[in-house]
Amino acid sequence: MDGTDSTAEPGSAFSVRKTAAFTVTTGSVTFEEEDIDVGSEFNPATGIFTCVIPGLYYFSFTISHILPGDSPLLTVILIQDGTPKATLALTTSAASTDSSSTAYSQSVILDLAVGSEVNLISDAKFSPTTTNSIIFNGYLIKADDPES
Amino acid sequence: MDGTDSTAEPGSAFSVRKTAAFTVTTGSVTFEEEDIDVGSEFNPATGIFTCVIPGLYYFSFTISHILPGDSPLLTVILIQDGTPKATLALTTSAASTDSSSTAYSQSVILDLAVGSEVNLISDAKFSPTTTNSIIFNGYLIKADDPES
Amino acid sequence: MDGTDSTAEPGSAFSVRKTAAFTVTTGSVTFEEEDIDVGSEFNPATGIFTCVIPGLYYFSFTISHILPGDSPLLTVILIQDGTPKATLALTTSAASTDSSSTAYSQSVILDLAVGSEVNLISDAKFSPTTTNSIIFNGYLIKADDPES
Repeated sequence: MDGTDSTAEPGSAFSVRKTAAFTVTTGSVTFEEEDIDVGSEFNPATGIFTCVIPGLYYFSFTISHILPGDSPLLTVILIQDGTPKATLALTTSAASTDSSSTAYSQSVILDLAVGSEVNLISDAKFSPTTTNSIIFNGYLIKADDPES
Repeated sequence: MDGTDSTAEPGSAFSVRKTAAFTVTTGSVTFEEEDIDVGSEFNPATGIFTCVIPGLYYFSFTISHILPGDSPLLTVILIQDGTPKATLALTTSAASTDSSSTAYSQSVILDLAVGSEVNLISDAKFSPTTTNSIIFNGYLIKADDPES
Repeated sequence: MDGTDSTAEPGSAFSVRKTAAFTVTTGSVTFEEEDIDVGSEFNPATGIFTCVIPGLYYFSFTISHILPGDSPLLTVILIQDGTPKATLALTTSAASTDSSSTAYSQSVILDLAVGSEVNLISDAKFSPTTTNSIIFNGYLIKADDPES
């Protein structure tokens, strides 16, 4: 986009997939596949989105969960600059002989400043059922007004 | 936004959280925490969003559900001006000794006029697993064309 | 929209509902109710969205699943021009006497060209719990820059 293109609106969006299990005891959720990353604002190796265009953003994520194998107690939290903003907290008392594959989703709108960081953290194992079952999306809904 | 700011686009967005259990027998779902509310169009005490800018809106919501404790039969409905538009209808035959925390999400696009009201209603108890597990979002996708 | 309306931005959005069970062995998920379809770009009889305005789109879908009755093994995949992009893969070892109604959601951002086709496919039976429990949404986040 250049300054003379009066019809261009600012944009920011990412959509990433986790194709390997999350096996870290506690930490940021990284992503093996980056399908959309306008402006290269998402770092899949760290799992962190860093805001360049201040404004309102919509974030959504879906995880898959497989039993037996994954942790029956699992918390996945979207954090903004270290503060929890949206949580999936899952527990099950499934018998050890049970097997299941399920999916859980969460979404939130955040007001980000330049340099704000957003990522997912988790405390236990969860696994993809397919290469397209664990997805994290974010995009700019509305940039801050230029003069405000 | 003022009339001379030619780059400003209209915006509307809210993101609210329910941090206390819904224990009303039947009624509108209210929200204890209001994180985003551009234009103060969402009333957390009533749970009602009232449209100011006519156009297309995206709504999404996630509820958490804890057993034992919450109702094993639960329906949460997004309504527009009294008409059901998007529903989560949950039932379980879980044994009374089972325990679980899960999450469910739903989303829909609505075409709203000035004064249109959107809220969630429920018919049974559901509870937050954390202060960030029950979230209701809405925002303007596209304002109606000014001349249409 | 006409060329003289300088404030109009391009838009594309659909929101459709499935009010009858999906009972096809394998195939595209069709929708009985079309609530939003700006530009008539979604064909509910085939279940296919065909892109007219190139750019980034957000898609989300929620399905309901009822046991007994629906398939305990179920995969619903969002595909773009034949390629899987976002998947809900569900399995359960629920005893034959168990009954439940649940819901699952998934979402993804796709970069579409003119003529790109997006639809859902499934391999087994799933059923609505209400007329508003199975919803498929899509909309334009950001049109490609006109000069790029």
